Parts: sequence; C-alpha cells; structure tokens
Amino acid sequence: MRGAGSHLVGTAHTTSRIEALTDGVFAIVMTLMVFDIRVPDDWTGSLGGAVASLWPKFFAYAVSFVQLGIYWAGHRSQFSFIQREDHTLRWISLAFLALVSLIPFSAELLGSHVRDPLAIIIYAGNLVAIGLLLTAHWAYATRRRRLVASDLVPEVISTGIRRTLTAPILYVCAIATATVAPLVAVGLLAMVPVAYLFPSVIDRIWGVRR
Amino acid sequence: MRGAGSHLVGTAHTTSRIEALTDGVFAIVMTLMVFDIRVPDDWTGSLGGAVASLWPKFFAYAVSFVQLGIYWAGHRSQFSFIQREDHTLRWISLAFLALVSLIPFSAELLGSHVRDPLAIIIYAGNLVAIGLLLTAHWAYATRRRRLVASDLVPEVISTGIRRTLTAPILYVCAIATATVAPLVAVGLLAMVPVAYLFPSVIDRIWGVRR
Amino acid sequence: MRGAGSHLVGTAHTTSRIEALTDGVFAIVMTLMVFDIRVPDDWTGSLGGAVASLWPKFFAYAVSFVQLGIYWAGHRSQFSFIQREDHTLRWISLAFLALVSLIPFSAELLGSHVRDPLAIIIYAGNLVAIGLLLTAHWAYATRRRRLVASDLVPEVISTGIRRTLTAPILYVCAIATATVAPLVAVGLLAMVPVAYLFPSVIDRIWGVRR
Amino acid sequence: MRGAGSHLVGTAHTTSRIEALTDGVFAIVMTLMVFDIRVPDDWTGSLGGAVASLWPKFFAYAVSFVQLGIYWAGHRSQFSFIQREDHTLRWISLAFLALVSLIPFSAELLGSHVRDPLAIIIYAGNLVAIGLLLTAHWAYATRRRRLVASDLVPEVISTGIRRTLTAPILYVCAIATATVAPLVAVGLLAMVPVAYLFPSVIDRIWGVRR
Repeated sequence: MRGAGSHLVGTAHTTSRIEALTDGVFAIVMTLMVFDIRVPDDWTGSLGGAVASLWPKFFAYAVSFVQLGIYWAGHRSQFSFIQREDHTLRWISLAFLALVSLIPFSAELLGSHVRDPLAIIIYAGNLVAIGLLLTAHWAYATRRRRLVASDLVPEVISTGIRRTLTAPILYVCAIATATVAPLVAVGLLAMVPVAYLFPSVIDRIWGVRR
Repeated sequence: MRGAGSHLVGTAHTTSRIEALTDGVFAIVMTLMVFDIRVPDDWTGSLGGAVASLWPKFFAYAVSFVQLGIYWAGHRSQFSFIQREDHTLRWISLAFLALVSLIPFSAELLGSHVRDPLAIIIYAGNLVAIGLLLTAHWAYATRRRRLVASDLVPEVISTGIRRTLTAPILYVCAIATATVAPLVAVGLLAMVPVAYLFPSVIDRIWGVRR
Repeated sequence: MRGAGSHLVGTAHTTSRIEALTDGVFAIVMTLMVFDIRVPDDWTGSLGGAVASLWPKFFAYAVSFVQLGIYWAGHRSQFSFIQREDHTLRWISLAFLALVSLIPFSAELLGSHVRDPLAIIIYAGNLVAIGLLLTAHWAYATRRRRLVASDLVPEVISTGIRRTLTAPILYVCAIATATVAPLVAVGLLAMVPVAYLFPSVIDRIWGVRR
Repeated sequence: MRGAGSHLVGTAHTTSRIEALTDGVFAIVMTLMVFDIRVPDDWTGSLGGAVASLWPKFFAYAVSFVQLGIYWAGHRSQFSFIQREDHTLRWISLAFLALVSLIPFSAELLGSHVRDPLAIIIYAGNLVAIGLLLTAHWAYATRRRRLVASDLVPEVISTGIRRTLTAPILYVCAIATATVAPLVAVGLLAMVPVAYLFPSVIDRIWGVRR
C-alpha cells in the first residue's frame, strides 16, 4: 500500500490525514508546555514572588509558542498548494513532527538553564532542524511540480523556500553567539519570531520587491 | 506564502486548519486540567475526606470548563460567518490559543490559592485577555466585511461584539473586588459562565430587544 | 450569535466542530490514562513483580477504555442522524465532555483503591452521569425531530434511548452493591462494557425483536 | 443504533470520526512520550552529561515514533480504501488505539530498563499486538470486499496483509532473542522501522516482483 504503484493507491483523503495529525501534534505541544510552568510546592515566599520567579519559563513558552505558530502556519501554507502526498512527503512530515514534539524538552531545558550556552544551542538547534525539514518538505513537493499544480508560478515556490530558510539561518547565528554571549543569543531567539510576524520584513531582507 | 499577494495564495483549506488547531487546543486544555485534581499520595485520612478536600480544584475546573466552552463556542460561531482567513486573523487566533493554553496554569493557581487576591486577579485577567482577543478577532474579520460575506447584516456584527465583550467586562469587576472581598470576586467568577448559558440574559443586559 | 434568531446563524460547519472537539477530548482521555500506569521509582523487587503489581491500574484502564469507546461510538452514532445543532445541544455535548474528562480522575481513584466502596461509587457514578447526558442528548435532538431528519423512523429514536440508558441502569446496580460486596460491584463494572460489545444482547434484554 | 439494521444507519460521516479519533490518539502518543525525557532535578554534574545520560530514553522515543508513524501510515492507507465502517471494524480500530496508547508505558519501561529482557519483551509484544490488530483490521474490511470497493484488485489486499504482517514477524524474532542476547534484540527493534521506511525492501523479502 505505502509507496505502491498508482493502481494500488486509494482515492480518498489525499492530504487530510497528515494535516489532521499535524494539527493534533501542534495543539498538544503548544498546550502542554504550560504544564511545566507552576509554582513550586515548597515555595515559602509570597505568591507574587513565586509567579515572578517563573519568568524564564514564561519567556521560553512565549518564544516557543510564536515559533511553533510560525512553523504550523508554514506547514499549513504549504498544504494549501500541495495537492497530493506520497510516501516520501509523508515521512518528511513525520520527521518534522518528531522534531516539533521535542520542543517541550528543549524549551524546558532553556527555561531551566537560560544562561547555559548548551541549553541555548540545543533549543536553537532543534528549531534549525525543524526549519530545514520544512524547507525540504516544500522543496520535495515542488521539485518539477511533483505534488503541486503543474502550473504553479515559480515565484510561489521561491518565496516558500526563502521564508522557511530565514528562521534556520537566524537561529544558526544564535547558536554561533551562544558560547561567547549567551544573553545576546537569547535575545536573538526572541527576535526571530517577531520578524516572522511581519513577513514583508523577511522579503525585504532577501531584497524581494513586491 | 504567508501574507502574500492574492496570486500567491493556494485555494484549498481556507479556515479548516485554524479551526482544527483550535479544537485540538481546547480539547487538551479542557481535559488536562483534571490531571491536577488528585488525592495526595501522603493523605492519611479517609478517602471521602480526601475527595472532599479537593473541592477548590473541582470548583476551578468546573468554572474553567464552562468558561472555555463559552470561548470555544464563540470562536466556533465566528467561524460560521468568517469565510476566509489572512495572516493577521491567523495570528489573532494563535494569540487567543496561547492565552487559552495558560488557563490550566491560572486555574491551578486559583485552585491552590482560592482566597489569595493575586490568584483571582491572574485568573480573571487571563479570561479578560482571552475575551478581548475574541472581540478583536471578530472586529478584525467583520470590519468593512473584510473576511465575511459582503452582505452580512450589521446586527450579526454588533451582537458578536456585545456578546464577546460581556465576559471581559464582568471579569474586570471581579478583578476590582478581588483585593477588598476575595470571596465575592470568586462568586462573580462562578456567575459569569452561568449568564452565558442563557444568552438572552446578556442581550437583556445590553437592552437589545428581539 | 449563540442561540440567535435564524437570520443570525452562519451556514458553514453545522456539527463538525463539536464532533472534532469530542474526538479530541476522547483521544486525550483514552491516551492519558496510561500515563498513570508506571513502575514506582522506588520499587526494589524484580521488574516482573513491579509490572504485575500494576494490575488494578491496567484493569481500570481496560474497563475505562472500553467504556469510553462505547460512549464515543454512541455520540458518533447520534451525530450520524443529527443534522444541525443549537445552543442547548452544544451545551449538553459540552457537559458530556466535562464528565468524560473526569474519567481519568475516577479511574485513577478506582485503580488506587479498588476495594474501597467510595472509589467504586464515584467511578460508577461518573459513568452513570455520562450515560444519562448521552440519553438526554439524543432525547433533546430527536424530540419532535428537532435536529434530525423530519422523517426519521421512530424505531431509530427508541433504540437510541434504550441503548444509551442500558449502561447507566447497570452501573446503578454496581453502585447499589458497592457497599455490601465491593468485588461483585467491580465485576459488574467489568461486565457492562462486554455487554455493549454485542449490541444484540442489549436488544434482547429489552425484549426487542429484530 | 450501533450494529443496527441498514434502515437504522445514518448517512453522514461514514469513516471520518474513527479517522479523527485515530489521528488524535497518535498525535498525543507521539508527543507525550517526550514528556518522560527530562534532566533529573537532582542531577549534580554538567548539563551536557545530563543530556547525554538520557540516550536510552531518546533511543526509545526515536524507535517508537518511527514505529508509530508506520502504524499510523498503515491505518491511514487502509482507510484510503475502506469506504464504510461497521460495528466490528470500529471496535478493531478501538482495540488498535487502546494498544497504541500503551506504547508510552512500554517505551518508558524500555527506556528505563534497556538491558532487561522483560522490558524488551513487553515493548516488542506491544508492537506485535498492534501489528496483528492492523492485519486483522485489513483482513476484516477486505474479506469478500466487505467494506471496500467491490472491484478492489486482489493485489492491493494481499500487499496490505503482507506489509502489516512483516513488522509483527520481525518483532517476534526480537522477543525470541531477548533472553539470550538483549542487545541484539534491541538492535532488531531499531532495525524494523528502518526496513519500513523503504517499502520495496519488504516486498523483496516476500519475493514480490514489481
């Protein structure tokens, strides 16, 4: 069945199941990171101090949520063009989801050790890997218009590559600065999502005119 | 792709993905709050006493579930009119979901410190922020009929604004009374959802005749 | 919007969102109960003994999973006839989901105190409440064919009532025997799902001929 | 309603609900396994050493994720041919999901006791049971073309049986070697998913020519 010849392929549900699985994984990851944020049971000071002391965890949550939103929106955007799936695309998507599922681990590590270069590198490295898989996903689907409309304009394809590549490149910069200036790296981590909220900024970085 | 010009936009799945993500986030938040409710392992009294001692957690769960149901139903109702999405609407929805995901944190805080004004303020403040985002979501989508049918009657738009604004206003009252009379504030928190179960009550508050 | 007059109701997604939310809640509850089943960290004996000692938790999981499957299938069956939803039906569904979300709490209680009558009563009581809400859901939707096809045959309606009422009645019997003979009650809990796996058995109990 | 005669069956949502439930369960199981992977709170060495010490948990996660992906893709592939469902198919699917939900338990056991034959046997046994249920699911649906198109070519049916049977057979080999050579068995566990990534390998094992 999987990867079988065309006469072996069923007709229904071309891409709806992988999209549903993706939505489920993102919903869970986005939601469950909050479960790491709680006032310690053995806290003896005021409640206000306890909540304030949680700021690195809230910071890691906020950055991760926005970043996950970006990757989710990117995946969703790709599937508004991708019309059918095959064995390889399915596994690129699954690898993408496997790395998305690791974000709560990396985010918890960053939230607990926000000044440790290794925590920053693991967290940013996780995001780089997700971004590169998303680029690969789009490149695979659009190469020779494999799984998209045969008349898809080239500009859509190149915009997709540029947009999915931008975050990994910026995160590699964060990794590079992590050992020399951890707080600068953390600042970079927080700024990448902000850039993505305004996609025209990204286009301008790449010198694209509209 | 994101926020791109109209010739760059794919045709499929206009709003179905954000709706699926929303359903997933709500399902998880509604379900997982229960996982905070459990008999302490070191409880030495009777099982009945242990279960009874959990009442503040059950209270926080019940109020939060109904409130989440209201916000979910509101989001769902909006999407029965919203016909397409854009970059901005998607991010208002994602911000809405990010704050919904924080409810287990605020509810746990309230369940553990039900008489502490700060816990009440954080919990009510979380609900206010969710409600205002839902209002913004509807206002953005309907402004100049941006993402809804061009002939949508004005009454639908104004009803949507009124209904989504009611809860935040009532919760602001709860915040105002939290420091002077915490238990009154908690009572207000419990009454807001009840009002929403009977939407005609809300219409009457605003003096709308049917 | 909610509960509004017919000219205020959007056209899209009549029942798909509440069905998606239901699927999400059931998927989470079914899955997460397993997270309560784990070998204690301070276990000093063999791994085999540790796994064997978990049998009450596996028992509670198995019974709960089958029972959740029955209720999920029942809800799903109802929605294969229900063609539209309204404010009241939505809230019956949400109350149903709120009680379904409590199953991990009751099941954990039963798994940890399998011989305690109170644990049995709370667990069975939870299942009774879910079942009665499912009956109410069907009764509301079909009364004067409110939300179903106007020519739905009466036999479908009465079969739905009988099937959803059977489990609550049997669970009330389990509650009645819990204080005098806890293990008999636990046996009854385990047998109810078995009856549901063979729906013809239920029909025979009610004396229905096919 | 369930298992009722054909005049009692509603028309909408033939297989979409069981597919949605399946996607939800897989999304949760795939995601939540990561929550078992965390640096112990009482770790005293370097962060790098702590992360490195987690390798058996990462290994169990990676193997389980790929295996879950395979089973999810298999279930999905079957439903691209299955056109309607009945009472029995629904319960085979639910039993399949019940065993999928146990994977976090078995994987955690394996991750914590990677050299213990019993942990290997329980984990591999869980995977065998899932695989056999998937085979049964396909066999039931396709027998006399019960729930598939009446003109489905026999090759599709036999390929589905072969592919779903391959993993259980290989896992039985892992179980057989677990007591004599645990590390060989663990190696086998890791290799099975790899074989599935390249379905042509499986076809070659069975001597199928394309």
